[in-house]
Amino acid sequence: MNRADSGEYSVGVDFGTNSVRAVVVDLRDGRELASSSFGYPSGVDGVLVSDKDPRLARQHPGDYIEGFVSTVSEAVRLASSFAEFSPDRVVGIGIDSTGSTPMPVDADGMPLGMKRRFRRNLNAQAWLWKDHTAHEEASAITEAASRFKVKYLTKCGGVYSSEWFWSKIWHCLRTDRAVFDAAYSWVELCDFIPAFITGNTDPLKMRRSICAAGHKAMFSSEWGGLPSKEFLAGLAPELAELRDRLYSQAVPSDWPAGTLTREMSALTGLPEGITVAVGAFDCHHGSVGCGVRPGVLVKTMGTSTCDVMVMRGGRGTRDIPGVCGVVPGSVVPGMLGIEAGQSAVGDIFKWYVDKLLPKDFCGDNPYAALEAEAGRLLPGESGLMALDWNNGNRTVLVDPMLSGMMLGLTLHTTAPEIYRALVEATAFGALVIIQRLEEYGSRVREVVACGGLAEKSPFMMQIYADVLNRSIKISRSSQTCALGAAMFGAVAAGRFNGDVQKAEKVMTGVKDTVFRPDRRRAAVYARLFRIYRQLHDSFGVRGHRDDLSGVMKELMTISSEVRKTAAAGKRS
Amino acid sequence: MNRADSGEYSVGVDFGTNSVRAVVVDLRDGRELASSSFGYPSGVDGVLVSDKDPRLARQHPGDYIEGFVSTVSEAVRLASSFAEFSPDRVVGIGIDSTGSTPMPVDADGMPLGMKRRFRRNLNAQAWLWKDHTAHEEASAITEAASRFKVKYLTKCGGVYSSEWFWSKIWHCLRTDRAVFDAAYSWVELCDFIPAFITGNTDPLKMRRSICAAGHKAMFSSEWGGLPSKEFLAGLAPELAELRDRLYSQAVPSDWPAGTLTREMSALTGLPEGITVAVGAFDCHHGSVGCGVRPGVLVKTMGTSTCDVMVMRGGRGTRDIPGVCGVVPGSVVPGMLGIEAGQSAVGDIFKWYVDKLLPKDFCGDNPYAALEAEAGRLLPGESGLMALDWNNGNRTVLVDPMLSGMMLGLTLHTTAPEIYRALVEATAFGALVIIQRLEEYGSRVREVVACGGLAEKSPFMMQIYADVLNRSIKISRSSQTCALGAAMFGAVAAGRFNGDVQKAEKVMTGVKDTVFRPDRRRAAVYARLFRIYRQLHDSFGVRGHRDDLSGVMKELMTISSEVRKTAAAGKRS
Repeated sequence: MNRADSGEYSVGVDFGTNSVRAVVVDLRDGRELASSSFGYPSGVDGVLVSDKDPRLARQHPGDYIEGFVSTVSEAVRLASSFAEFSPDRVVGIGIDSTGSTPMPVDADGMPLGMKRRFRRNLNAQAWLWKDHTAHEEASAITEAASRFKVKYLTKCGGVYSSEWFWSKIWHCLRTDRAVFDAAYSWVELCDFIPAFITGNTDPLKMRRSICAAGHKAMFSSEWGGLPSKEFLAGLAPELAELRDRLYSQAVPSDWPAGTLTREMSALTGLPEGITVAVGAFDCHHGSVGCGVRPGVLVKTMGTSTCDVMVMRGGRGTRDIPGVCGVVPGSVVPGMLGIEAGQSAVGDIFKWYVDKLLPKDFCGDNPYAALEAEAGRLLPGESGLMALDWNNGNRTVLVDPMLSGMMLGLTLHTTAPEIYRALVEATAFGALVIIQRLEEYGSRVREVVACGGLAEKSPFMMQIYADVLNRSIKISRSSQTCALGAAMFGAVAAGRFNGDVQKAEKVMTGVKDTVFRPDRRRAAVYARLFRIYRQLHDSFGVRGHRDDLSGVMKELMTISSEVRKTAAAGKRS
Repeated sequence: MNRADSGEYSVGVDFGTNSVRAVVVDLRDGRELASSSFGYPSGVDGVLVSDKDPRLARQHPGDYIEGFVSTVSEAVRLASSFAEFSPDRVVGIGIDSTGSTPMPVDADGMPLGMKRRFRRNLNAQAWLWKDHTAHEEASAITEAASRFKVKYLTKCGGVYSSEWFWSKIWHCLRTDRAVFDAAYSWVELCDFIPAFITGNTDPLKMRRSICAAGHKAMFSSEWGGLPSKEFLAGLAPELAELRDRLYSQAVPSDWPAGTLTREMSALTGLPEGITVAVGAFDCHHGSVGCGVRPGVLVKTMGTSTCDVMVMRGGRGTRDIPGVCGVVPGSVVPGMLGIEAGQSAVGDIFKWYVDKLLPKDFCGDNPYAALEAEAGRLLPGESGLMALDWNNGNRTVLVDPMLSGMMLGLTLHTTAPEIYRALVEATAFGALVIIQRLEEYGSRVREVVACGGLAEKSPFMMQIYADVLNRSIKISRSSQTCALGAAMFGAVAAGRFNGDVQKAEKVMTGVKDTVFRPDRRRAAVYARLFRIYRQLHDSFGVRGHRDDLSGVMKELMTISSEVRKTAAAGKRS
């Protein structure tokens, strides 16, 4: 009860792909006092999809607002059952979200998707990170940037993605002129929420996140913000005009976006006027919730994997080819934030279990059944080697047109052997990323993992420790994104002297169990990794000595042509 | 009933891996009047195995004799229920068997495995074709032959196999001196049976098959028969001595091996003194049962595939690298017999169904369930490409240390897609063989298929027709090996003017259903085959431009080392 006297709290709100979660955390130790989650009501699991295009993935902006109010009010209500807590002890709010998830807004910053006229128009909604309708625009941007005098892609790995800001806006222009014209500006989800709940919704004045700007919109102070009008006009004159209605400044999350409005105070039960921090992407805040610092790689391991590091900038700092971004302040203010990732990790295991699992393993917990047998195998024993490119390769090849491979099959190969080879392949893929980071000066001394796979699969974590030949610690919090957001809420409110690194020391930690590499297993994996690397380069790197880089693309081209011809045949 | 007046018959006996089958056929049309089969009683499904060495596969010679008597007497008894038939209308007997399946014999030609002293000694039994205990000796023979002045391997594809005659005998010398020393000579199964039932068992005088000698024992008239004493002494002096107790002549199957003994007449019900033809290997006689002739490739498609062709010899004839053998008279007397093959075909599909089949397909007939869905896919639609090397590659790479591969996997790949890709891979492998044959002057105008897969799977045959871009006909007889043997029994007895090609015209045929290539599907497969070929050469051909030929071997080496270390750890 004494504890209550000195306690202060912060609220973190994490907007995921299918749901939003709010947590109330204790600033003294990062403890989660209460939490609440809310599944977006629209579409399929919160995602608006289209029969006509499997690449399309949108979300209704109204779901975000409803989710914010629902989860924050509920978390505050739950926290209030503790005597030590009262809402007026909450000092700040932080926000993180998926991204790049931009949405068109009017001149007041209101999403077009919430207006009656556009309520049913998919293009007026938020364009969810995993929407790939703009793949042609992405290629065209990469192509244009490679020829332009300013090297706009150097900060985001050298290839522009269909998941990102400009690809999506340009695609909207080319396919739905009415929406494009009605949009005064475009706002990332992680910027929209802070703007909305602080009332600072003017698109020209709202605080924009450096994380979203730098990693996805080619924003850099090196070339004065967003890409120049000259460059954008080369894509489309309308994009050059739009530039004036976007932003010229973007800031880290230790900046306040504003203070909570009276309306939001009434709806959530939190005090009016408390600080709301500038938002950022989920994995970035998640890495802060894991205590990211120089030398520590934070891996958020779920359906895909997001890798985040920070490093002190300086003269020697180089851009890192193939890495999703190197942006000052995007993770920890004052440091370079580095983002990398693997397009599919848990998704590969889920695919195997959902589509290919033999009946012997189809019990209540197929993963456990597979892991039990796969765990008895020794590294290298099966003779199998896989490439983990079932959903393309995000880092370091940045190529969505790659595919998965399994090599070393015999007449004795079993399902647990295949499963283990798939897990090992994702670990080899993780090592390629680490080697690239280290090659460019960002030494990885320690790995901290969080996310579903890190928490659920010791089998997998031990393989990762042996393959990476590094100890792997598991984040203490299982809500690292929301925790990181809450930390920024406090920091933006001036707590911890406004220094998120101080907040990390107090509020984050790891579990007792550490996965340490075994010397012998690591030695076998080192031999196997040389083979992985050889296949990786042969199939992934154009112009490599053993150049098979055309093989996967040619198969995809044939497949797509065959399907088109068949569809045309059916129509005619 | 009139038919009976002029009818003559022949008996063919086919010694397979697990059983022996005898048929009585009508010389007027090749019709099978009666048949009988007998599973070898010893070991597992007729194969003697060892806990200590999974590579070991032997057979008890007594099983062969018992099987011959059982099946022939039963087939003759069954045929006798037809009024048109009587045993004295049987003019000859032909024999075929697996090979190379040599066995040690004493100076009287009696198998050591049938003597009390050696009854329980696995090394004194017949060394079944698929025994791979002699893989080290095989490599050493290939190595020695590559350095020797006479190019002994030119007639059998350039690489000596652990399945073959000399490897096995040498391995016996190195591992069981007592058996080697007790062996006066060694005899192939296909030579032993004719010798035994004609009483011509003296190892120095019995008629030996040119098929076994030429394809498996490096026998050629070009260098005066078996390899020289000088060469054999380079392997082991004892092998050079053994050469004197083997043979200096080997002949085609239109030669008689002798006549049926009184004892065998009494045991089988066939007339004493009828002609017994010189034996040969199963696929070779099987191709004759399919009506093999220049321009026609006969594919016997089962667990593995055996491809047989004949061509007229002549000045332009070249040896064909990577092909299991080019031997005068080994198939059709007076022509070159060519043997090629794929190490695993049906075995790959069986592996997939037995070990990896998802539960949705686990009904009564999983093959039918898979084929129903796989059959709806278009060529190239899945984007998958496999290498069919799950059991190594017999032709044209002659490399048991290769393994299978599956490429193009996505998060949507399904089991029927994988199954189809496996079938297509075996068809691409078949096309590589055809291209090699044609490259060396043996034009393949038509394909005739026989064996279990050819009879059971129209799905597969259509894929083969489209991939090979050639019509595929199916042999009328489902017992082509035994039929071919029966035809040689008649020919050796002087029927058809002693010309097996005349017998083919009368006694063989194909079914009405012909699988014809579809122009569009063939065009897509032609594109896919270029990719298969690129992967085939990259992973299979040392020194190729994209040289990944070390990858599969290195994985196998690591696997074998890891297993050895683990086994040593358990022992210590």
